[in-house]
Amino acid sequence: MSEVHLPPATGPDFEGYSCPVPIQKHEVVVMGHGSGGRMSRDLLNRVFLPGLGLSAPRSLDDSAVIAVNGLRLALTTDSHVVSPLFFPGGDIGRLAVCGTVNDLAMVGAQPLALTVAFVLEEGLPLEELARVVASMRVAAAEAGVTIAAGDTKVVQKGSADQLFINTAGVGLIPPDVDISGANAQPGDIVILSGPIGDHGIAVLAAREDLGFETALQSDVAPLNGLVSVMLAAGRVHVLRDPTRGGLATTLNEIAELSGVAIELVESRIPLRPAVNAACEMLGFDPLYVANEGKLVACVPAGQAEAILAAMRSTPYGGEAEIIGQVLAGPGGQVTLKTAIGGTRLLDMLAGELLPRIC
Amino acid sequence: MSEVHLPPATGPDFEGYSCPVPIQKHEVVVMGHGSGGRMSRDLLNRVFLPGLGLSAPRSLDDSAVIAVNGLRLALTTDSHVVSPLFFPGGDIGRLAVCGTVNDLAMVGAQPLALTVAFVLEEGLPLEELARVVASMRVAAAEAGVTIAAGDTKVVQKGSADQLFINTAGVGLIPPDVDISGANAQPGDIVILSGPIGDHGIAVLAAREDLGFETALQSDVAPLNGLVSVMLAAGRVHVLRDPTRGGLATTLNEIAELSGVAIELVESRIPLRPAVNAACEMLGFDPLYVANEGKLVACVPAGQAEAILAAMRSTPYGGEAEIIGQVLAGPGGQVTLKTAIGGTRLLDMLAGELLPRIC
Repeated sequence: MSEVHLPPATGPDFEGYSCPVPIQKHEVVVMGHGSGGRMSRDLLNRVFLPGLGLSAPRSLDDSAVIAVNGLRLALTTDSHVVSPLFFPGGDIGRLAVCGTVNDLAMVGAQPLALTVAFVLEEGLPLEELARVVASMRVAAAEAGVTIAAGDTKVVQKGSADQLFINTAGVGLIPPDVDISGANAQPGDIVILSGPIGDHGIAVLAAREDLGFETALQSDVAPLNGLVSVMLAAGRVHVLRDPTRGGLATTLNEIAELSGVAIELVESRIPLRPAVNAACEMLGFDPLYVANEGKLVACVPAGQAEAILAAMRSTPYGGEAEIIGQVLAGPGGQVTLKTAIGGTRLLDMLAGELLPRIC
Repeated sequence: MSEVHLPPATGPDFEGYSCPVPIQKHEVVVMGHGSGGRMSRDLLNRVFLPGLGLSAPRSLDDSAVIAVNGLRLALTTDSHVVSPLFFPGGDIGRLAVCGTVNDLAMVGAQPLALTVAFVLEEGLPLEELARVVASMRVAAAEAGVTIAAGDTKVVQKGSADQLFINTAGVGLIPPDVDISGANAQPGDIVILSGPIGDHGIAVLAAREDLGFETALQSDVAPLNGLVSVMLAAGRVHVLRDPTRGGLATTLNEIAELSGVAIELVESRIPLRPAVNAACEMLGFDPLYVANEGKLVACVPAGQAEAILAAMRSTPYGGEAEIIGQVLAGPGGQVTLKTAIGGTRLLDMLAGELLPRIC
């Protein structure tokens, strides 16, 4: 966390507020603040980190590591507001369980337990809720994680959109594992576990009002099994799941946190024809479309082939590819060598591509 | 969890569903499902527990205990949807931090870290969000707990009511502590940490459309310090914070879980004149009104005076009183010896008293 002027602690009626770029009276929350891209970062830096001050000593990651009596616990939380609740290949329940399991897995933690909290809109059919809950059971069983605690709140019709689910999780990091977005090293190889954009396009297709159909299914899946196999095959420096903001935003975060450059080769990035076609039709760049069952890894060059082979032996890594490499600099820069031989600079997602994708 | 017929695990598109009382097509979520009383229990027993099946081996408590390498961790979650966001004595941020800290403290755990997840409605003034976040910082500092991880989602205007906050928490239970709602013993003394109903009435008063005003403040406060003092003074069998559903519902839960009866003495239950007056005017029974900074404890008779004295030495236990005792049976029964000499049976909250109180 950078140096910021903290507000004085004068209790809940505290009125003053200071932050790097002062908040103006007229400023309001906009959809882009939930994009996972640059505007989300802005909200974090201007409101959450200075506001929470010393009670949030780590940057407000979505997977923190805390030390307890010699153990390293991973802690993470995600609220899910995906619309619609059911989409090809998944639903909000499976998404909630997998999203949190994956956040734990991305620091190398074995998931121990999840908590689940529902905000229900008055009028939601109980049968839909029961289907979502049953889907959570299936996803939790697949990931081998226990749902240990829960909570339910109900709000009046019109005060929420059907159903929101928060899942928080706790996991245990093995002693020899040190995985972080800040650990990418020049010379590392960048591996992607499979084709990108499936989730975003599948959810989009499920929104009736877009009049857009495809046989595509969301990739939503728990990745802790894949990560276990990778860790058994070699050393891993960085793991991230490219959800909101897509692959390009995730790689920008890694490049920034590690102070390195990342160079991708466009032709190496797996992409289904259906996703490619949908993106062309809609004017989307698949590099910014959300995934919910993919991970990107930075691994030492000498171990890349062994890790890649191990990944390909698993259900969720069968289409894994080496897509690029880590360079010494310029720090924070992500570039793409295009199919036609050019080089394109990839920035973080700037605005909002697809609201309520997760 | 009782014996229920579990649905087959056929993946996220699972259609069938079985539960003790089958769900009918026309059944929908109603406000009472969020009351914390009998209807919330019904939703748990009919939807959540059978739906989650073996992935939720414990009853879906809001404070679970998991064993990790010889440590006992407490895990809890709560989503907060209180309306309005700011009320006398607190706000949704302070409520979210204290609610989760208190759930951890009620199993005797020292809070280690919280996660925080925001669902924001498009159009929410950033200044209001900043005030809520600053209030969370103050409450976390008071409780001595770290906010370790966070998440933000944004939904379109009209898809949520301003701001919902989920806080999940992890705590560490000391080796010699064994506190549970199932541990009440015949002969135990029931202690209440202070006057009831302040939170519910304060929030109600803040709802402008009720045309109701009072100088009363919510009691919202972190109780982990009070619990530490109690544990140092003697042995504690049961701790619970009587939030949604109020004192009567909480004592019913304890009586049911422990298979004991509880007898209260009405004249011993602390109640502020302003809360009493408001309840009389509105036709509420203060025994069912929510608290956010109170706890009820069952302790061995021989240790009650020492624990009571210790409680009274703390900021949040200054008005603690012995309010009743635990009897051998009938199991699950809670009775109140009234001021006029009668005996009244106290049931759980049946419907919904005050929606969106937390």
